[in-house]
Amino acid sequence: MMDTKEKCGVFGVYGLPNAAEIAYLGLFSLQHRGQESAGIVTIDGKAVCERKGMGLVSEVFAPADLERLSGSIALGHVRYSTTGSSSVKNIQPLVGDSRFGSVGIAHNGNLANSITVSERLRRSGAVFQSFMDTELILHLIAQSGFDSFEDAVKEALWQVRGAFSLGIVSRDKLIAVRDPWGFRPLCLGKLDGGYLISSESCAFEVLGADLVREIEPGEMLIIDSQGPRSFSYAFSPRKAFCVFELIYFARPDSLVFGNSVYQVRKNMGRALAEQEDKEADLVVPVPDSGIYAALGFAQATGIPFELGMIRNPYVGRTFIRPTQEARKQAVQMKLDPVREVIKGKRIIVVEDSIVRGNTSRRRIATLKKAGAREVHMRVSSPPHCFPCFYGIDFPTKEELIANRMNSEEIKNFLKLDSLRYIDIDGLKASILPPGDNYCFSCFTGDYPILPDQGLGKEVWER
Amino acid sequence: MMDTKEKCGVFGVYGLPNAAEIAYLGLFSLQHRGQESAGIVTIDGKAVCERKGMGLVSEVFAPADLERLSGSIALGHVRYSTTGSSSVKNIQPLVGDSRFGSVGIAHNGNLANSITVSERLRRSGAVFQSFMDTELILHLIAQSGFDSFEDAVKEALWQVRGAFSLGIVSRDKLIAVRDPWGFRPLCLGKLDGGYLISSESCAFEVLGADLVREIEPGEMLIIDSQGPRSFSYAFSPRKAFCVFELIYFARPDSLVFGNSVYQVRKNMGRALAEQEDKEADLVVPVPDSGIYAALGFAQATGIPFELGMIRNPYVGRTFIRPTQEARKQAVQMKLDPVREVIKGKRIIVVEDSIVRGNTSRRRIATLKKAGAREVHMRVSSPPHCFPCFYGIDFPTKEELIANRMNSEEIKNFLKLDSLRYIDIDGLKASILPPGDNYCFSCFTGDYPILPDQGLGKEVWER
Amino acid sequence: MMDTKEKCGVFGVYGLPNAAEIAYLGLFSLQHRGQESAGIVTIDGKAVCERKGMGLVSEVFAPADLERLSGSIALGHVRYSTTGSSSVKNIQPLVGDSRFGSVGIAHNGNLANSITVSERLRRSGAVFQSFMDTELILHLIAQSGFDSFEDAVKEALWQVRGAFSLGIVSRDKLIAVRDPWGFRPLCLGKLDGGYLISSESCAFEVLGADLVREIEPGEMLIIDSQGPRSFSYAFSPRKAFCVFELIYFARPDSLVFGNSVYQVRKNMGRALAEQEDKEADLVVPVPDSGIYAALGFAQATGIPFELGMIRNPYVGRTFIRPTQEARKQAVQMKLDPVREVIKGKRIIVVEDSIVRGNTSRRRIATLKKAGAREVHMRVSSPPHCFPCFYGIDFPTKEELIANRMNSEEIKNFLKLDSLRYIDIDGLKASILPPGDNYCFSCFTGDYPILPDQGLGKEVWER
Amino acid sequence: MMDTKEKCGVFGVYGLPNAAEIAYLGLFSLQHRGQESAGIVTIDGKAVCERKGMGLVSEVFAPADLERLSGSIALGHVRYSTTGSSSVKNIQPLVGDSRFGSVGIAHNGNLANSITVSERLRRSGAVFQSFMDTELILHLIAQSGFDSFEDAVKEALWQVRGAFSLGIVSRDKLIAVRDPWGFRPLCLGKLDGGYLISSESCAFEVLGADLVREIEPGEMLIIDSQGPRSFSYAFSPRKAFCVFELIYFARPDSLVFGNSVYQVRKNMGRALAEQEDKEADLVVPVPDSGIYAALGFAQATGIPFELGMIRNPYVGRTFIRPTQEARKQAVQMKLDPVREVIKGKRIIVVEDSIVRGNTSRRRIATLKKAGAREVHMRVSSPPHCFPCFYGIDFPTKEELIANRMNSEEIKNFLKLDSLRYIDIDGLKASILPPGDNYCFSCFTGDYPILPDQGLGKEVWER
Repeated sequence: MMDTKEKCGVFGVYGLPNAAEIAYLGLFSLQHRGQESAGIVTIDGKAVCERKGMGLVSEVFAPADLERLSGSIALGHVRYSTTGSSSVKNIQPLVGDSRFGSVGIAHNGNLANSITVSERLRRSGAVFQSFMDTELILHLIAQSGFDSFEDAVKEALWQVRGAFSLGIVSRDKLIAVRDPWGFRPLCLGKLDGGYLISSESCAFEVLGADLVREIEPGEMLIIDSQGPRSFSYAFSPRKAFCVFELIYFARPDSLVFGNSVYQVRKNMGRALAEQEDKEADLVVPVPDSGIYAALGFAQATGIPFELGMIRNPYVGRTFIRPTQEARKQAVQMKLDPVREVIKGKRIIVVEDSIVRGNTSRRRIATLKKAGAREVHMRVSSPPHCFPCFYGIDFPTKEELIANRMNSEEIKNFLKLDSLRYIDIDGLKASILPPGDNYCFSCFTGDYPILPDQGLGKEVWER
Repeated sequence: MMDTKEKCGVFGVYGLPNAAEIAYLGLFSLQHRGQESAGIVTIDGKAVCERKGMGLVSEVFAPADLERLSGSIALGHVRYSTTGSSSVKNIQPLVGDSRFGSVGIAHNGNLANSITVSERLRRSGAVFQSFMDTELILHLIAQSGFDSFEDAVKEALWQVRGAFSLGIVSRDKLIAVRDPWGFRPLCLGKLDGGYLISSESCAFEVLGADLVREIEPGEMLIIDSQGPRSFSYAFSPRKAFCVFELIYFARPDSLVFGNSVYQVRKNMGRALAEQEDKEADLVVPVPDSGIYAALGFAQATGIPFELGMIRNPYVGRTFIRPTQEARKQAVQMKLDPVREVIKGKRIIVVEDSIVRGNTSRRRIATLKKAGAREVHMRVSSPPHCFPCFYGIDFPTKEELIANRMNSEEIKNFLKLDSLRYIDIDGLKASILPPGDNYCFSCFTGDYPILPDQGLGKEVWER
Repeated sequence: MMDTKEKCGVFGVYGLPNAAEIAYLGLFSLQHRGQESAGIVTIDGKAVCERKGMGLVSEVFAPADLERLSGSIALGHVRYSTTGSSSVKNIQPLVGDSRFGSVGIAHNGNLANSITVSERLRRSGAVFQSFMDTELILHLIAQSGFDSFEDAVKEALWQVRGAFSLGIVSRDKLIAVRDPWGFRPLCLGKLDGGYLISSESCAFEVLGADLVREIEPGEMLIIDSQGPRSFSYAFSPRKAFCVFELIYFARPDSLVFGNSVYQVRKNMGRALAEQEDKEADLVVPVPDSGIYAALGFAQATGIPFELGMIRNPYVGRTFIRPTQEARKQAVQMKLDPVREVIKGKRIIVVEDSIVRGNTSRRRIATLKKAGAREVHMRVSSPPHCFPCFYGIDFPTKEELIANRMNSEEIKNFLKLDSLRYIDIDGLKASILPPGDNYCFSCFTGDYPILPDQGLGKEVWER
Repeated sequence: MMDTKEKCGVFGVYGLPNAAEIAYLGLFSLQHRGQESAGIVTIDGKAVCERKGMGLVSEVFAPADLERLSGSIALGHVRYSTTGSSSVKNIQPLVGDSRFGSVGIAHNGNLANSITVSERLRRSGAVFQSFMDTELILHLIAQSGFDSFEDAVKEALWQVRGAFSLGIVSRDKLIAVRDPWGFRPLCLGKLDGGYLISSESCAFEVLGADLVREIEPGEMLIIDSQGPRSFSYAFSPRKAFCVFELIYFARPDSLVFGNSVYQVRKNMGRALAEQEDKEADLVVPVPDSGIYAALGFAQATGIPFELGMIRNPYVGRTFIRPTQEARKQAVQMKLDPVREVIKGKRIIVVEDSIVRGNTSRRRIATLKKAGAREVHMRVSSPPHCFPCFYGIDFPTKEELIANRMNSEEIKNFLKLDSLRYIDIDGLKASILPPGDNYCFSCFTGDYPILPDQGLGKEVWER
């Protein structure tokens, strides 16, 4: 039933008169976490206002929308989903009306026991409006035996397992929750007299807000007229911070799991450099995500750093590909080699990950065609072999190239002169705190929590 | 909580391969029952498909939408709401996922005990997605103690009172329900091997379908692979067919409550004619709704019928009125007097109802300005004094002119030479079956069912 | 080169502060003359403002557009074109910048010597922006040897032949022109201190403006700060008022060529009645255009008038027809027979014209299916056999049913019990002034002016 | 009359079956030269097809548009204009119908004698459709005394002075023209059997096409069924290549005026480095345009290169700024400092130019707030003091900060620890061929051609 493939951004505001506008600006900084849909819910004393739509933040909200979204509490969400069921119903924040009044919820992550929970709720007479696991939490709150909203939220959280960084708004509260494993980031900020929560700290910087701290795994933070209060509603000895947030997903100017994303990526490049044995003329990143590891690699090896591939910023989501032929050119459209830089040179290309391999293959061919003498690739993540059950959307196991080929075969498929991945130890050495707190399951298959049943068994879909 | 002001049209299809397309064509014929939003839900073996949107049927559905709406069961709805909360959430058919799988429901009418029921459901942990009383029925079904879907629907229906003509679709069924009072119409049709339900029979005519019969008050008709089966799930000795459907709301080419709407309206004109004592040169209808009573009036009195006012079909919903001044002209834009017909004549204007009186006043002034010597008005409904709790949206009691003025005062306000309304007896004489089966509460204040509490008390609104 | 198939409406304003808004309201009343595109040009001391777009008047202009269209002189146009080349370039009013500054022009009709004139202009170095014959007049003005704008316009008018009712605006003037034959209507109105021109007088009525008079054939009326001045720039002894304006095209509440359109149509029905020899129970019009002739026919024969077919006002331009099958139903969707009225009756259907015959055939089948005992058709125009070169878009000669069949054959094709057309004499007797001033060429093939060459020979098209 | 403020991109295709699609892909690579509007014109044997619209290439063209744009000759244009008159009429390519048939023209640059030429054309009876100087060339061609199209184009070119890189299409030809001074770039490419022209060579790379050569100043290149033929239609001993193309405007992966833009920018950074006397910890570019000079600077000085400011790629044209307060934040939204990189460091920021100074000021404040110990700025262009008459849109002289303040004052205004610009000699040393062939007028005020009159004197505007 559940749509398990999403990566998302959550942004909440408490106690600021123009809460919707602040949320709107905050979502802009989290846009990289989800480009498919966006939504903001505000609470204005007694009424809930919503605006949700498909598209980028800039496309979903017109000035009139923000004006209409009155109130000093706001909750925003950006979402990316690759499945076909990207319908309007599945745009967050999700809002439901219950015995606690209207409650809004925004979720980054993925529940692992959604099938069991949803089956139980159906039997108790629940009527679902969406096909998102997020909605289960709403029903668990509404069906709680406790009288107070806070207790009902806690009781609901006890019943779900998996990855969830949540923002919840009710009549007079903003609640921030992180699952006991801490899969996804969530942090607390302060702006003027009000409070902010955000998936990443980069959203605070541009607003001129201060980062207070990260929400702890298993913490439930309640912000209302009494100020913020915090509870440890659950505890897991095993932590599982998603390492892919650091490798690829988070913005380089964010602080995530206590790390500067920028520095971690440079460290990864340095870790790769330590084992370097090839001679080369240039280090060339695959922009934009490979840039920081490439910088670290170049600084450690002393090989000059050059932007030998230029990204065309206008080739985006909306790029249409009239024919099959043109579709191939589209990949090329995004990155153009700088012939004058590349020609006759031995190049080390630094990339953050190889997923299916097709795009990399075409790019390497382009570099060769532009005159590169040798092309070596260094990858700042280990070979990617396993699916993610915690909210990052990877292709199926069959599509992951590292599942079908070993490094030598991949090197040959990509027509590289050499290929090397960072290893798990190099990765661990690049990050703080000790690597044991992280989830590496997409590289190792060692899952901290297993989903309670096979996914996608449901027959009723929209 | 509930949005109590709507008039709607329901259309269902069972057992036709292109069910969505048939529903689309059916909704076209019911468009006069609601121009604010439209929706179609189809069921395709295991999946539910929806398409809903604000606007006319022709604006909501593109050809690609109809193609996507696969399945041989379809349920469609058109809706009109005058309240500000005309949000996307409140577009029908409403769909919820429950222990009976996905269930869709489309509703014409208004529940009278929605506040009590919704309070009870909230306490039991229900999470509402909309602010429509229709959703209550969905939750009552999901929370039913019975195992079979049909029994659960029946149990739900026992718990609601008020006006409801419903279409319900589930995995393999189309269900048609009419409340025990029979407020709103609903009828059954047959097309090729399949079945249709429709708020009005006019939708069958254009599809080339046959009208089988009207659904009875208190009847629940289930159509599935075994064909149609019928139950009397409840009985009310008092019937309450809405007489305003015949006066104004239904299309003249429909059969409603056993009546030809066209003939009933002509009868009303004849009833008015019986008491006519003025001499006049012309009978002029207010188009389009006054035309049929005017024809009956003209035929009975022998006074020539002329279309002395022309409707501009292009002045519709989308007409913008840049200034206050232009807004007044807008009323005039819609109906233009034909000066050559009117000039120097004594005119009897036939209208179906006078609500606030402002529009009538401006029109009569226009006729006088165009040279009419005398203007007499005959109205084919009695003075309109009371609100409707059963699904027709009238203005507040304060705005209804017949509440503030007697006939003589209204005549003076409208600057008429004479004014006469049909009386309740004349109305009863114009319709079949005996008038005792009808609801005249908007004229008499004698309500068949009273709402359980004051309306509009809810504080949490969207 | 020229797009010869259009019917249009022209509306101009001089000397009113909110000229654009008045033009907007005026175009609403002329919307029946063209639904494909609309445009308004205003002049504000020194600047020209334009807003043009595809669609209805209500779709093209947003309130912000009207605000932006400042100035006290305005010229508006609505247009209908059936050809594929309905591009934005061909929306009127057409504006060009020349030695007389910016000049705007709006045209109803069709030039007969456009090919000759355009060839001459090309040779002199003209660069055309559109494919409309209207643009030729703009170039003739710009290339004129005269110094004053008025003289240049006159010189331009001497060089074109054909049907043209024009509105022209320049820096400080509004000019109204009608061709010497008087094919298309154009009239002058007065509102407050300002002047209006309009294709039809119905647009004055709703604005509360007074009809001053019709512009004469061969008249050029200049309105500027000195008030209106008039010239007879050319004279034709032969007049050629388009009789189809009275039969079908103009609104019934307009005065056209000295006639009340409403009365003329009733006269046509009376003329048909004079020769009636069949007995019948009902007279039923094909709405909306056949209503007035049907009324005249019913009043003259004494046979009761009934609206036995109901038009669905929502089946409009935007009606999509998902399949071929549905397309056939679309015709039926527009007009629904009222079974209770029709059943068992002998009906005389009054229609204004039969063009291809297919729609009529389907409607008659519907009436028979609804139970009509006999269906007789009376048509208020003679058989339609010839194309129009003066601005009304008829199908090709081959498609016109009266070209392929005689009346008996058409009757059989339509499955009628009898069919009778009005004859030219009956038509002439129905109108003022004497019929000799009219163009009947679509019935007789007797063309007042012949186009200078075959049409559609141009090879360069957009 | 003329809209003198634009920078544009031109792309043409000859002899490829899917010419529109190739042009579409080409315009994508030139999108940085104009984001306001885009257009493509194709020629299909006898018909001209156009599609033009406001917005990005990806917004203007839907797949159906490209399908409709049939033919093997195409001409495309992207345009940026800062003036209010950014109307649909002013979107290029401009198409006019003349004695040479339909002719399309796309223009990058600005004519210097447009007022004189337009006055002459008006007197000769020309009717202008736009307010672009480009249209003058169209009229000069149409009014030429020569019989052949090629001779007419040449005659037209003799009559205009200024900056113009043109693409012209007619029935069977694609013509590329560069003005005798060579202000703007234009180059010739080859793809399969066909030919391409493009403002920049980067568009060839992604299409897999080969760069043949740059069009010469004063060259007119005709491509038709005989292949390409070239004429020197005019000669200027003084060349005037726009140095700002190399500094800022062109893409780094283009070859312009014989230079690798990437290398030129690195050279500029090196030239700045030669005179460096400050100690610093980091070199930080202002992305994206300052990146290459910063790289050159860092490599020459050995100071580490770090991306201390991150660009948010989603803050684009569509970013709405609900309030004045938010507008200020918008500048900050675009570039976020990476606190962990900046903190406690002495930074050299490399920027390509300082125009008004406000944006720079806010960015430097952000860096200081993020903890930078010292901020020094190095600028890879000299102080910018004079307007451009050749097609680059700079603010007015009054707004240019370098006009009001000397370097020391600017340093203080920006709150920098030091500020240094490259000097003209450093600039000249960075480029090929010798600097004498370049136009430096925006830095020096030494204009190669002066406009014939003050601009903006026209009173009739749209």
